Amino acid sequence: MPDFPVAPPAPFEGVFAAVLTPLLDDLAADEVALAAHCHRLLAQGCDGLSLLGTTGEANSFSLNERIRILEAVVEAGIPPARLMPGTGCCSITETTILTKRAVELGCAGVLMGPPFYYKNVSDEGIHAAFSEVIQRVGDGALRIYLYHFPQMSAVPLSLDLIESLLKDYPVAVAGMKDSSGDLNNMTAAAKAFPGFRVFSGADDLLLPLLKAGGAGCITAISNISAPLAAEVLAKWRTGGGDAAHTMLCKLRRVITAYPISAALKEIMARHSGDGSWRTIRPPLVQLNDDDARALHAALASTGYGPPPL
Amino acid sequence: MPDFPVAPPAPFEGVFAAVLTPLLDDLAADEVALAAHCHRLLAQGCDGLSLLGTTGEANSFSLNERIRILEAVVEAGIPPARLMPGTGCCSITETTILTKRAVELGCAGVLMGPPFYYKNVSDEGIHAAFSEVIQRVGDGALRIYLYHFPQMSAVPLSLDLIESLLKDYPVAVAGMKDSSGDLNNMTAAAKAFPGFRVFSGADDLLLPLLKAGGAGCITAISNISAPLAAEVLAKWRTGGGDAAHTMLCKLRRVITAYPISAALKEIMARHSGDGSWRTIRPPLVQLNDDDARALHAALASTGYGPPPL
Repeated sequence: MPDFPVAPPAPFEGVFAAVLTPLLDDLAADEVALAAHCHRLLAQGCDGLSLLGTTGEANSFSLNERIRILEAVVEAGIPPARLMPGTGCCSITETTILTKRAVELGCAGVLMGPPFYYKNVSDEGIHAAFSEVIQRVGDGALRIYLYHFPQMSAVPLSLDLIESLLKDYPVAVAGMKDSSGDLNNMTAAAKAFPGFRVFSGADDLLLPLLKAGGAGCITAISNISAPLAAEVLAKWRTGGGDAAHTMLCKLRRVITAYPISAALKEIMARHSGDGSWRTIRPPLVQLNDDDARALHAALASTGYGPPPL
Repeated sequence: MPDFPVAPPAPFEGVFAAVLTPLLDDLAADEVALAAHCHRLLAQGCDGLSLLGTTGEANSFSLNERIRILEAVVEAGIPPARLMPGTGCCSITETTILTKRAVELGCAGVLMGPPFYYKNVSDEGIHAAFSEVIQRVGDGALRIYLYHFPQMSAVPLSLDLIESLLKDYPVAVAGMKDSSGDLNNMTAAAKAFPGFRVFSGADDLLLPLLKAGGAGCITAISNISAPLAAEVLAKWRTGGGDAAHTMLCKLRRVITAYPISAALKEIMARHSGDGSWRTIRPPLVQLNDDDARALHAALASTGYGPPPL
């Protein structure tokens, strides 16, 4: 276990994978396969890893399972300075426990969505939920990246809410992942809040968001295309990146035609020759044979091949 | 603790309260106040109690907190044969642990919603989630009442899904709570599946659903109006109930103009003189003063007074 960090964590930037969680036959996390996948993603050019998010089926795991998954990855030697695990649960008590453990392990940031059972809640209520968690964690090393994914959580994080959180917690609230697909919202946040790091949840918005002052991306597709996103980032720094961007957009279009975790697990299974990659927790299901065939054909038609394993 | 039940639990019917969870200042459950409230609701004519549902802020509590709340109520002498606690979490692992504990405690049924983080999931995926839980609990005493509340969970339970679950688990799947507000869906379920017990989540549909072959209701408003719902039920059995039904409809209209748990906690606070009833977990918030005043005025205008405490 790493020591508790004394220096404040460095702010995140660049390309993050929203890491898939490989499973054993009994639907438990395959810690060995997960650690190997994390090492590979870093070697492929990811600046960091966002474990236990939507793509990683986090909410299909119990609190204890999530803690164990996180510990296993750190024990396997993934530097916690590169980890931004998802820690947002429905209850402030669970979010607090998981976040506290992530900070203890040295994670340089956490991705935190709002409680998502109750709908049509007020900004005041969401603010209170984040406040309770921040105060209960009570640790100066905590860095939160807010998770805005209204299509999935059905609980949007408004710019007004972010402003009020930044006012109360200017250090702990470090940035956001915006999976709304709305570039205007991302650029508005990046412009309105100096130093607030905005990541796109969509690969096709990485380049436009970088141009608008964003910090990078955190995406599912990076499980199979991290070098491409890393190329967009590297070339953008010298004024380019358009060709890699175009390929990334193509890839995203092909893959998001299917439920994304199942599609990526299907691609990993085919690419690795290890069919156990297809195992997924309910309520998600594996792609059926027809969809799998169509996905592989569409992927081949892009001309892109995932990096060697 | 009661022994594990040998005889199969009796099927539920009648009026159930979706029980509020009173809280202490630190937002922990007030076990003493909760047990007293449960005893009172049974004395007021409730046939049973559905703890830890939407009204009870279940998803704002951790798994361990929920287990403890359930144990506390049973330890306080509430007969588990009258308990239908909510046990549906986002993960099959947590739903299994909580459900298993409820069955061990002797609860004659559980109210189980589907995993609710992932949206637009297939019936196949929801079926797989319920199947995993039923098989992992692996107990012949398990009786599940499916919780259909699409406005909150955003994961509807279709009649096709219910049919397929009843085919595979004709004993374990005992009924449903339908909080959709759609009487047609409730009556269709009651007619399509003989012996399947359909409860309305809305007070105003109790009488119409009883007439259509339903089993009763499980409602939030019953926290303050259990005698009225019990009167609807008792009088319906001899061909009446219309006057109590009309008052129940009025009450429901007044209270559902506000977020329901907060409104009911406000009413309990005023009625009991104990302001701590107002405490609520984020992301829910207390009614503001203006709304509280307007609610009490509207409630007074109905002419209804909650039963003495």
